[in-house]
Amino acid sequence: MQLQNDLLLRAAKGEYTERTPVWLMRQAGRILKEYRATREKAGSFIQLVTNPELAAEVTIQPVDLLCVDAAIIFSDILVIPEAMGLPYVMEEKKGPQFPNTIQSAADIDKLHIAQGEEELGYVAEALRITKRELNGRVPLIGFAGAPFTIFAYMVEGSGSKTFSKAKAMLYREPVLAHQLLQKITDSTINYLKMQITAGVDILQLFDSWAGVLSPEAYSEFSLAYISQICDAITEVPVTVFAKGAFFALPEMANLNCRTIGLDWNMSAADARKVLPNHTLQGNLDPCVLYAEPQQIVKQTKAMIDSFGIGKHIANLGHGVYPDINPDAVRIFIDTVKTYSAEKVAQSK
Amino acid sequence: MQLQNDLLLRAAKGEYTERTPVWLMRQAGRILKEYRATREKAGSFIQLVTNPELAAEVTIQPVDLLCVDAAIIFSDILVIPEAMGLPYVMEEKKGPQFPNTIQSAADIDKLHIAQGEEELGYVAEALRITKRELNGRVPLIGFAGAPFTIFAYMVEGSGSKTFSKAKAMLYREPVLAHQLLQKITDSTINYLKMQITAGVDILQLFDSWAGVLSPEAYSEFSLAYISQICDAITEVPVTVFAKGAFFALPEMANLNCRTIGLDWNMSAADARKVLPNHTLQGNLDPCVLYAEPQQIVKQTKAMIDSFGIGKHIANLGHGVYPDINPDAVRIFIDTVKTYSAEKVAQSK
Repeated sequence: MQLQNDLLLRAAKGEYTERTPVWLMRQAGRILKEYRATREKAGSFIQLVTNPELAAEVTIQPVDLLCVDAAIIFSDILVIPEAMGLPYVMEEKKGPQFPNTIQSAADIDKLHIAQGEEELGYVAEALRITKRELNGRVPLIGFAGAPFTIFAYMVEGSGSKTFSKAKAMLYREPVLAHQLLQKITDSTINYLKMQITAGVDILQLFDSWAGVLSPEAYSEFSLAYISQICDAITEVPVTVFAKGAFFALPEMANLNCRTIGLDWNMSAADARKVLPNHTLQGNLDPCVLYAEPQQIVKQTKAMIDSFGIGKHIANLGHGVYPDINPDAVRIFIDTVKTYSAEKVAQSK
Repeated sequence: MQLQNDLLLRAAKGEYTERTPVWLMRQAGRILKEYRATREKAGSFIQLVTNPELAAEVTIQPVDLLCVDAAIIFSDILVIPEAMGLPYVMEEKKGPQFPNTIQSAADIDKLHIAQGEEELGYVAEALRITKRELNGRVPLIGFAGAPFTIFAYMVEGSGSKTFSKAKAMLYREPVLAHQLLQKITDSTINYLKMQITAGVDILQLFDSWAGVLSPEAYSEFSLAYISQICDAITEVPVTVFAKGAFFALPEMANLNCRTIGLDWNMSAADARKVLPNHTLQGNLDPCVLYAEPQQIVKQTKAMIDSFGIGKHIANLGHGVYPDINPDAVRIFIDTVKTYSAEKVAQSK
């Protein structure tokens, strides 16, 4: 089906766009009271993730309510460990917790490689419903966690400021770490292929904990696996967002992906220098959305100016925080749309 | 008194050293069973901080037990808010908590500017005892939090992944934020002057939460105040360690300080390029100390190689984690000492 709004895909491919497309990480989430109502209906976070009809419903909410240029499937990066045989629970205020973690070769042996529909059919079904109900309005983004981030949760057992247990395995038992990372990577490729079959238009890899690694460790234990995934996905454009991995941007120039996401610590100008061929995504500081409207407009315009027109997908530099007012999000979105359109018009 | 080992001071001043000096952030802390015994004796963390005899005792322990090239006074950066009228408590596993936080102009008005001995005499006393008992063996490092990091705690009320409340004030009420930052800065200068009078040989500013800010926000709300402090401290060399602020290194070249600390995300080679006149401190990934001895030696040598000989103070890229084995720390320290001495000898 022909998309009515394909700005995001054209921007990802480096093609002309009449304005900069915009969406927000975590746009399908707690900032919307409509999301909170659906989640209430589902029961728990995980019940919402595993209920295709309700997952599709919250996926589409921000398209209707915020007028973003893309929908991103409502799911969680931790469905992969679960599909591999390591389930998680989501505890209020504590975030994801793994009752069992991976500590030994025997633990890794017990994990299987996720095949796709078999374990993760509920995500495929949510994608099919979403695709049907979106009816070509905007592109649908699929996603997965980058292998190192998934590894970090599976070994650490929860979020962590330092991920010192996960990192200890990298330094102490690198062979074991690589075995686990490869199993995660193979599972992730199967999962992303499943998402493509189910209809996603573009895929994003989230390396949420990239920033805990040194440049050398990141290259060996994260980028090598992201690279495998990018090479395996040829059907749709891929975006890689590695939060905190400013040091890896030069090496990312070699990735077979179309778009690189930037967090708000990173400078658009510096990233353009080392990534001349990639589209960039980002990167307003999410906390700007706590400010008064005038300040949001000012900072959003400065962000658009810093990337310039073309090869840019506007976003925050991180997921939107749950206590942000949706009206502030709308000001951000409207400013991106009108200001970038003005700039394109002026450049002609 | 003439120091018997002044390697750290010579390195900070960019002078010749026969080997690279080494110490660890948080060396006076939970890694040592002797520290845990003293803390037990004190009662609580805050009782240890405010007890000059016991604070001096744990300050000296790593000099005796780990043979580091400097002692750093055992204290906490949050003594400054307390001295300004905003007390904190330390909760097991939760870290520091502020029963009251700063939210308004009235809250800021109520704070007073710390004068030094008057509120923080217990730190001065701990420094005098330490200085006497060190008896010139190694230099004594004093420290304070950088104003933005102190601000972040005072507004947020505790540690946080995002410090979104503190950052919201920067964007929403910048005038108020600057007022609070100036009060903290004035207090910090008085506090550091008191430490100099009490005998410290060198001072370090810790900007632990630098990494939550965008480059523009960091320049306006953090670096401007660090710069005031560096300009005010002329008696002893100053080190600035801004964790996560890789983006600010070029601007730090203008700081009136001798040494810039690097975390383990930052590349020594890149830092040398933008900071040709400063001594650099750091930056082994603390998690390397979980590895086998051979791997610790290898990674430590690689770290020494990355900085080269001269204008380098070896350290971890962050405080040592409490569950690290002191024997691993000793391997790190011994490797720095012997390997850097070999390199100096070879270079002659």
